[in-house]
Amino acid sequence: MTDLTDPTTHPTTRPAPAPAAHPPAAAELAAALRAGLPEDAVLTDPDVTGGYARDMASFCAAGAPAAVVLPRTVEQVQHVLRTCSALRVPVVPQGARTGLSGAANATDGCVVLSLVKMDRILEINPVDRIAVVEPGVVNAALSRAVAEQGLYYPPDPSSWEQCTIGGNIGTASGGLCCVKYGVTAEYVLGLDVVLADGRLLRTGRRTAKGVAGYDLTRLFVGSEGSLGVVVGAVLALRPAPPAQLVLAAEFPTTAAACDAVCRIMAGGHVPSLLELMDRTTLRAVNAATHMGLPESTEALLLAAFDTPDPAPDLAAVGELCRAAGATEVVPAEDAAESDLLLQARRAALPALEAVRGAIMVDDVCVPRSRLAEMVDGTAAIAATYGLTIGVVAHAGDGNTHPSVCYDAADPDESRRARESFDAIMGLGLELGGTITGEHGVGVLKREWLARELGPVGVELHRGIKQVFDPLGILNPGKLF
Amino acid sequence: MTDLTDPTTHPTTRPAPAPAAHPPAAAELAAALRAGLPEDAVLTDPDVTGGYARDMASFCAAGAPAAVVLPRTVEQVQHVLRTCSALRVPVVPQGARTGLSGAANATDGCVVLSLVKMDRILEINPVDRIAVVEPGVVNAALSRAVAEQGLYYPPDPSSWEQCTIGGNIGTASGGLCCVKYGVTAEYVLGLDVVLADGRLLRTGRRTAKGVAGYDLTRLFVGSEGSLGVVVGAVLALRPAPPAQLVLAAEFPTTAAACDAVCRIMAGGHVPSLLELMDRTTLRAVNAATHMGLPESTEALLLAAFDTPDPAPDLAAVGELCRAAGATEVVPAEDAAESDLLLQARRAALPALEAVRGAIMVDDVCVPRSRLAEMVDGTAAIAATYGLTIGVVAHAGDGNTHPSVCYDAADPDESRRARESFDAIMGLGLELGGTITGEHGVGVLKREWLARELGPVGVELHRGIKQVFDPLGILNPGKLF
Repeated sequence: MTDLTDPTTHPTTRPAPAPAAHPPAAAELAAALRAGLPEDAVLTDPDVTGGYARDMASFCAAGAPAAVVLPRTVEQVQHVLRTCSALRVPVVPQGARTGLSGAANATDGCVVLSLVKMDRILEINPVDRIAVVEPGVVNAALSRAVAEQGLYYPPDPSSWEQCTIGGNIGTASGGLCCVKYGVTAEYVLGLDVVLADGRLLRTGRRTAKGVAGYDLTRLFVGSEGSLGVVVGAVLALRPAPPAQLVLAAEFPTTAAACDAVCRIMAGGHVPSLLELMDRTTLRAVNAATHMGLPESTEALLLAAFDTPDPAPDLAAVGELCRAAGATEVVPAEDAAESDLLLQARRAALPALEAVRGAIMVDDVCVPRSRLAEMVDGTAAIAATYGLTIGVVAHAGDGNTHPSVCYDAADPDESRRARESFDAIMGLGLELGGTITGEHGVGVLKREWLARELGPVGVELHRGIKQVFDPLGILNPGKLF
Repeated sequence: MTDLTDPTTHPTTRPAPAPAAHPPAAAELAAALRAGLPEDAVLTDPDVTGGYARDMASFCAAGAPAAVVLPRTVEQVQHVLRTCSALRVPVVPQGARTGLSGAANATDGCVVLSLVKMDRILEINPVDRIAVVEPGVVNAALSRAVAEQGLYYPPDPSSWEQCTIGGNIGTASGGLCCVKYGVTAEYVLGLDVVLADGRLLRTGRRTAKGVAGYDLTRLFVGSEGSLGVVVGAVLALRPAPPAQLVLAAEFPTTAAACDAVCRIMAGGHVPSLLELMDRTTLRAVNAATHMGLPESTEALLLAAFDTPDPAPDLAAVGELCRAAGATEVVPAEDAAESDLLLQARRAALPALEAVRGAIMVDDVCVPRSRLAEMVDGTAAIAATYGLTIGVVAHAGDGNTHPSVCYDAADPDESRRARESFDAIMGLGLELGGTITGEHGVGVLKREWLARELGPVGVELHRGIKQVFDPLGILNPGKLF
């Protein structure tokens, strides 16, 4: 852990300062922005702009934006970027601010470029199985629109009712679906991107396949607004699968539940969902929702299948759970009962937040063969730091969300929370994992990114950043 | 088409010359290479090295390598790159030379870096569903090794019995499986790459998910050796699906067959294979193999499903084919009959080559809703240029392989073949497609790549290339 766990040197570090040697006067900047934007698309009242200063990440400082702009067209975004390039003002692209790493946090004197007004679904094509969207489309709005045509847009982050497709692309979001359907990156076929200098770049394709040149599309996915501003996307869709049926299994130890996960995956099953909640999480959900989840069990595993006939898989998975030591195996009777179990899972993070008033949600992904070590190691870290840490996990992916519950008003508990968070990331790397499975790096994990990438990787990252953003105006202080 | 179709100015352009101002003497280069490689790993006899000069692409010139090296370890590859950086000698990474775009062709005075001796499968892990391999592993060898453990590595280029995983990664290969299982890129989780200066970079992960930093892994996939040399890969595996059952449908027009493809995909089906062969191709296969395919039909469509119970999908797809005008719909009785139909499809390219002695295989992918226009447009181009062009297509992906049959000894026919090839790519772009769905750019399509990317895209490509390869020694003259 060493110096990275020292809260005085790192966790509350401010994002990098604006790159301008002489930042323009606020009035000059606002006037320049208004020259190409409608009056109501440029906000400068600090009481208003302050509301755009941060996303949902804990322990990430945020600066005061000089302005917030809300463009409605690609040309308006180009104007913003041209203006900010000319005036050397940092630009922070922003969606619904549901991110968990501070990637959308403002820096002092920046222009927050909110894409939420660009929220049109431009095309849904069932033959080509694509949707063409603006970046401000809300994930759930797209999901519902394509469902009406028998189609399915799988990526389903917890915040899917609020978060935008542009934000999902910027942070490479995941969700519950990933164990079968993969992450956002796998659904982005092509992008329209406004570059730092205001030029428009079109990447990728509308076709099912394509390998012409370097994969610039994929380079932008997860780049957290540091390489360009996504103003349009061609997304791949799938046919809507049957409703999934869920099985719940209770285990006497988390290790036994993780063993069941390994047996299920080694057994060749393809669940549409494979989620784990530990006892801390189950108790928190019960306290918050009175759902009556079993509190005597150490871990609850939810497995689901969305095939035309899920019965054989559910039966086989139930057997594997029992072989791994499950004390109860309960298949849902129908879709309604399945939905109830999923509601319990989706209630986990707010419920854990209620335990001590605040949570810090980590996002460490390990090879699933190391999942038990990750979960048990997290419990040991909780004991070491005298904290409550609930673990929910996309277990089938080895992607854990250890959620550190703490009282933000208690400085010592907050310090221990921050230290335990770093310890968890260190454990993830030791187990051959990554510091982020789906939440991104932002401000929160930038020192850890350098550790995961190593010096050669960091050097190449900086080189790529320089190619796309030579003036360093795009979301400075994030990622690196 | 304009100047790009003029064979005197473009199709046989030599790859770019070596970047060295003063190329080292052959003896100096060989001695420097041998300082870090076994004696038998450095070949300099022109009679031998000439055998490594080119891949399987037509109309792509190749130079004479100064040496061919066959390293067996990562350290040896690092020595080669350090040596070539110091001496400013171009390096052409090479697999089994089955590529179809000239990406592996030698340039005069280069070092051909063949990875075929690095052919070990280092790990197959059924719990994590990954394989860790060296780049020279043959695709079929990996496929068979993972099948023994109930696993499946989907990418299946036509050359799968010869081509290497490193070559598949370099060119982002596809195959018949892509309509359901996607392309090589989707199976590459992490890479070990030797950079131009000999440093080793590790990208990506062993985990199911991960979003730490820019997606360098994906940047290398399809980069045709222009950014670094892949010396190891972590590949994602799937559980082995049931054997697929194939249905064959005959159509009175290619447009009707394409209409069936659109109905099948819009109908929410997920075939494991959806292939089209036109009448020219069927006749060629019969001539070459005496398989007795129907010659009176204009197009044969093969659709397959590998689900536990494929009967409902096969029945529904049969109905959709009839609704689109199919005159015959014949489901295979069993796996053996299915295999026979697939053999016919796999025999298509060699059979077409036999028609006039040579073929030029194009690889244009269009939105599947434009597939009929692409296939009919190709027939019109064949008529315009007075050529035989057979079309085989991964129809479910909209990925056509119009194969221009020509007599290489006839200069006029060769010229017309080259011109028609360009006309086909132009048509693909007009229809909203890409110049390459899975074969890559190499030497063959580099002028077309610039056209597809546009000037902003090209500028960013060159910037990225400069970051990874500032001396320009990695596979110069390819892609750009």
